[in-house]
Amino acid sequence: MPRQPTRRSRSPRSRAAATRSELDADAKRSRSEREKPVPLPVEGRRRAVVERLYPSVDGGAFPAKRTLGDRVVVEADVFTDGHDLVACRLLHRPLGASDFAEAPMTALGNDRWRGELVADRLGRHELTVEGWVDHFSSWRRDLEKRDLAGQATDVDLRIGAELVRQGAARAAGADAQALDRAAERLEGPQGVADGDLAARVALALSPELRAWMERWPDRSLATRWDPPLPLVVDPVAARFSAWYELFPRSAAAERGRDGEPRHGTFRDVAARLDYVAGMGFDVLYLPPIHPIGETHRKGRNNARVAARGDVGSPWAIGGREGGHTAVHPALGTLEDFHALVAAAERRGIRIALDLAFQCSPDHPWVREHPEWFRRRPDGTIQHAENPPKKYEDIVPFDFDTPAWRELWQALKGVVDHWAAHGVSIFRVDNPHTKAFPFWEWMIAAVRAERPDVFFLAEAFTRPRPLYRLAKLGFSQSYNYFPWRTSKRELTDWMREITSGEVAELFRANLWPNTPDILTEQLQHGGRGAFVQRLVLAATLGASYGIYGPPFELMESDPREAGSEEYRDSEKYELRHWDLANRPSLAELIGRVNRIRRENPPLQHDRSFAFHAIDNDALLAYSKRGMDEEDDPVLVVVNLDPWQRQGGWLELDLEALGLEPGHPFQAHDLLTEARTTWHGARARIELDPQSVPAAIFRLRRRLRSERDFDYYF
Amino acid sequence: MPRQPTRRSRSPRSRAAATRSELDADAKRSRSEREKPVPLPVEGRRRAVVERLYPSVDGGAFPAKRTLGDRVVVEADVFTDGHDLVACRLLHRPLGASDFAEAPMTALGNDRWRGELVADRLGRHELTVEGWVDHFSSWRRDLEKRDLAGQATDVDLRIGAELVRQGAARAAGADAQALDRAAERLEGPQGVADGDLAARVALALSPELRAWMERWPDRSLATRWDPPLPLVVDPVAARFSAWYELFPRSAAAERGRDGEPRHGTFRDVAARLDYVAGMGFDVLYLPPIHPIGETHRKGRNNARVAARGDVGSPWAIGGREGGHTAVHPALGTLEDFHALVAAAERRGIRIALDLAFQCSPDHPWVREHPEWFRRRPDGTIQHAENPPKKYEDIVPFDFDTPAWRELWQALKGVVDHWAAHGVSIFRVDNPHTKAFPFWEWMIAAVRAERPDVFFLAEAFTRPRPLYRLAKLGFSQSYNYFPWRTSKRELTDWMREITSGEVAELFRANLWPNTPDILTEQLQHGGRGAFVQRLVLAATLGASYGIYGPPFELMESDPREAGSEEYRDSEKYELRHWDLANRPSLAELIGRVNRIRRENPPLQHDRSFAFHAIDNDALLAYSKRGMDEEDDPVLVVVNLDPWQRQGGWLELDLEALGLEPGHPFQAHDLLTEARTTWHGARARIELDPQSVPAAIFRLRRRLRSERDFDYYF
Repeated sequence: MPRQPTRRSRSPRSRAAATRSELDADAKRSRSEREKPVPLPVEGRRRAVVERLYPSVDGGAFPAKRTLGDRVVVEADVFTDGHDLVACRLLHRPLGASDFAEAPMTALGNDRWRGELVADRLGRHELTVEGWVDHFSSWRRDLEKRDLAGQATDVDLRIGAELVRQGAARAAGADAQALDRAAERLEGPQGVADGDLAARVALALSPELRAWMERWPDRSLATRWDPPLPLVVDPVAARFSAWYELFPRSAAAERGRDGEPRHGTFRDVAARLDYVAGMGFDVLYLPPIHPIGETHRKGRNNARVAARGDVGSPWAIGGREGGHTAVHPALGTLEDFHALVAAAERRGIRIALDLAFQCSPDHPWVREHPEWFRRRPDGTIQHAENPPKKYEDIVPFDFDTPAWRELWQALKGVVDHWAAHGVSIFRVDNPHTKAFPFWEWMIAAVRAERPDVFFLAEAFTRPRPLYRLAKLGFSQSYNYFPWRTSKRELTDWMREITSGEVAELFRANLWPNTPDILTEQLQHGGRGAFVQRLVLAATLGASYGIYGPPFELMESDPREAGSEEYRDSEKYELRHWDLANRPSLAELIGRVNRIRRENPPLQHDRSFAFHAIDNDALLAYSKRGMDEEDDPVLVVVNLDPWQRQGGWLELDLEALGLEPGHPFQAHDLLTEARTTWHGARARIELDPQSVPAAIFRLRRRLRSERDFDYYF
Repeated sequence: MPRQPTRRSRSPRSRAAATRSELDADAKRSRSEREKPVPLPVEGRRRAVVERLYPSVDGGAFPAKRTLGDRVVVEADVFTDGHDLVACRLLHRPLGASDFAEAPMTALGNDRWRGELVADRLGRHELTVEGWVDHFSSWRRDLEKRDLAGQATDVDLRIGAELVRQGAARAAGADAQALDRAAERLEGPQGVADGDLAARVALALSPELRAWMERWPDRSLATRWDPPLPLVVDPVAARFSAWYELFPRSAAAERGRDGEPRHGTFRDVAARLDYVAGMGFDVLYLPPIHPIGETHRKGRNNARVAARGDVGSPWAIGGREGGHTAVHPALGTLEDFHALVAAAERRGIRIALDLAFQCSPDHPWVREHPEWFRRRPDGTIQHAENPPKKYEDIVPFDFDTPAWRELWQALKGVVDHWAAHGVSIFRVDNPHTKAFPFWEWMIAAVRAERPDVFFLAEAFTRPRPLYRLAKLGFSQSYNYFPWRTSKRELTDWMREITSGEVAELFRANLWPNTPDILTEQLQHGGRGAFVQRLVLAATLGASYGIYGPPFELMESDPREAGSEEYRDSEKYELRHWDLANRPSLAELIGRVNRIRRENPPLQHDRSFAFHAIDNDALLAYSKRGMDEEDDPVLVVVNLDPWQRQGGWLELDLEALGLEPGHPFQAHDLLTEARTTWHGARARIELDPQSVPAAIFRLRRRLRSERDFDYYF
């Protein structure tokens, strides 16, 4: 009769032990309070383990992001107990498809496996990995070892014959017959134990048998990672894009007859397209083009009360003439807009519109859908505020409204409307001040219908909401780049967003300025600062943008000291820009954008590396192409806008894919200077008075004698 | 009539653009091929986000590990859109309980929140975080800002009155009445717009109103992380334990009458308990105590054929006398075993048994359950092998058997049997050679019934299976410690297992030696190596163990050069150990174990830090207690077993919780030497010929003048 277990009752010897004695009493609680019996699994023989799938965002809660044409690398740990070998496959399909496509996976060592798929279709996909114990390969490997040790026996071959016979039963066509024949031959002559052993071993180890068996694996007890991981394939422009923002109403080429700026139109914007295309931009982003409210309209320089004739902020959307689906009459007609979209397309430029989901008090919805807004007890409508600041010209939507379904549909309707008018890129104003669940649904719903549409988040907010919006479906995002100016700040920030899980979910769009952001650095740094920030934005990020013409014309006056607002900001008044006669960076910008187009490493944000340089005013970094054959690009920027700076660069040759001991050519694409470097160390001097940055293409094709002769 | 969107048709300008043009054609696929329309969520107003819960293992697939009495820190990101404040609670319950207990969470900044629970009950738990938009707190904060800016109005107060009225409707008892009255007063006198404004604002901002409202939050639109994360609470010994392994059959105090070793018994082991307790161990682990097979029994030094009288390997389990639930007759009876368990308990020692799930060919199950084993085509049973190596004395279970359910239940029955006989700790032999799904079920099933039982994995295998076993339920694990000998190796390994997610799932048990592992270092390092490895194991790890008496007697002869096997290993023969007369580390081991018991920092593997010391032969590390008041422990070990080594230590004071500029006392607990250190730098010299390690308790209670006087 087994004795009942006795409890250990030792005297407390330390705090931890005392705590233990007291609390172990808990273990005595009655059976009824305990956990339920643990049932057996349905199938206990799924011995393969599939773990740690990559790429994964929040454990599969959100899709990893890729773009059309990308080779998508997928990795997983696949292993089993004991000595058996495993095999595995990468499975993938567009969301909604019934069957998975399969791709092979290869072992990287330490139980890690890698496979690849080509992202050949826009939209959502799902992928998973299936692994199983490979009894045939295990047997084959063991037989090979036995054979080498002189141990292989008739019995070992008969074990294999049975495995091959089972393979034949799974196989079809010629393979089935071949496997049947192989099983028979492995089995050997009836009753003759070791008959023809050498020939049978040779067949067992033959590559033919292995190939036949690999085509018909026994996956009945395979383990599949479940649920599959989501993956979203975006248009290439979601990864690689150069944006130019302008205010259409300030796009008139000439002043009005009164000498004041004339209100620009879509036709004026169309006339400026060659200028924009000449600088090499491929996205032209327009602030809101809708009617502007009159109630509480802001005046010039954000004056609380507008003067007669003040045009108001385009973000105070909606007036007598309509709301988010209408066009401001002074800009022209919807037909003019169509013509602009078409003219832009002819130049390889896509028009991006601004989605500012808020209303002026004069927006038709305020009257038609009072239930979408918050009312105060005195019957007035709640305007936007961040106490004690008030934004009386703007009325926010109430995302807590019981009528949220209708509100969401209406907002999606705005996107549908403009998408139907040829707009496939939307820059979203302050997405972090609207309900997160709305974005997740809206973006998914729009993109399920139009996978070529994508969204840029103006998410100037804290890190968690910033990344959350990216997870919810925004393809690109503004970020802290404008304020990252020191070597340390730039290095830390770019490392954060280009490595680890962040790189899977977040795509930065780097803007040195916006209509809301004239940084202190640009206010005080002169031309050197503008050039520096241009090169940083355009080469640190595969996507970047500038707000022009203020950027290329190097506008630097703030509204007042300590402010990041532009003086006489276009947000509140018409401006006229004298593109022809003011000092301009337009030509340099064109050169930088051409360099981006011609060098694949600058078209994505992967394989990013920083390089040591012994001067804190110099920042050096490189990018490599997704194709191994692409020459790497190395950028060195002088962060000091005034002083010439020099330093010794110590290249991380491995990160560049360069072999130590092989000389290579450093071709500065900005100045066309070509020099030969013989190793990791090089001296760099950069003068902000001329070109404060170098963009080197490192030509490493020195493999043949001929190449060598050519360069030296 | 809206125009249909036109496709951009720009000329290819770069490889990426070309790829895009080709592949964008895909976007034209017909609507029917596309994803399904995305439905609205059931509730779109759950505006709070709960993300990145900690502690989490594989995204919640496996439980994080804690021990009874631990304060469990739980963190999550909780935030919402816009300017509204959020509130959140930590929810937790034992698995199977219907209701969650709740704990408050406090904001750490940057949207991170932290809460704590006390692990006051063994077994599985689950925890989650619920967050919601806190409209009252948001309103209160805004009102405070308005009030400071002189903006607070009757209307603002009436908005608050409505929130408080809703709170009253949720509240019960006195709170409901208090909230009703407060709502009335906030509302103000009927028809008098600004009546009594100051008093109403004062009430609005009062801590009383805040407290009432906090007790009755509106959680109707709360967001809860789902499913909850699992957490397992283990016995304290799963975190903090000192193990001693001995072979019972070699435990006889004296030789037999023939001068040869006498076969030891459970009574001999009981007689040795005072010796084991004197060294301060609290777990006594016995290799298998079951009958040993005779078929293909191994001889001394693993000879292929046993000589007459050879006792065989205890891991060749099962013979005429029974299998895994029987006791080897030469060791005594089950009653003797009970007496041993009870005698050990009286000394604060728990008996751990070995679970070696394999059979000798003579095991009763081989006859009774042939379906649990693999048969070869010639009718023989498959013995263990790793071709070309053969282990003919052992027959493995076939985990691919269709009778896996019966096999699993029978193996669990072995654990149940010994647990019913007072054993609560099992050391599992080679768990990585048995099916992973079995372990997950078996350990969960046993622990659901007996949460005080736990398992140590002898997982000397690759990293992925090593960690997998820990995830599946093993509370402790052998690991690569025996072979990590250099400063770099020890630092890297301890960092890997004590940080990140690994620290949540994996608990190392550090063994300098085992019956299978006499490392090269111990073979050649003399006493210095043994002492060094003892101190490393006992202070790097909260759990450690030694295989004695060979360890304390400093046995160092291998079976042959290049082998890690002991010569004349107890695995294959009886040994007699002359504990009284051979040089021994027993007293030093006792001192080290006493230091472990008296210093809480050595009782867990969290807040581990390495410190710089300018000599690669010296390793310095520290641990802090889970209680802030505990003095930190700093250990410095001379890794050179032969030479005196010295170096300058540069302490990471922050990691130690020490304030720069405050002197502190370094009390070497091994030598009782006390010195005063005045900052981060200290000179250390350690001589392997005396004590090659220092274990300093850093006394930092120098806060009062009195303390100061006492020390100086």
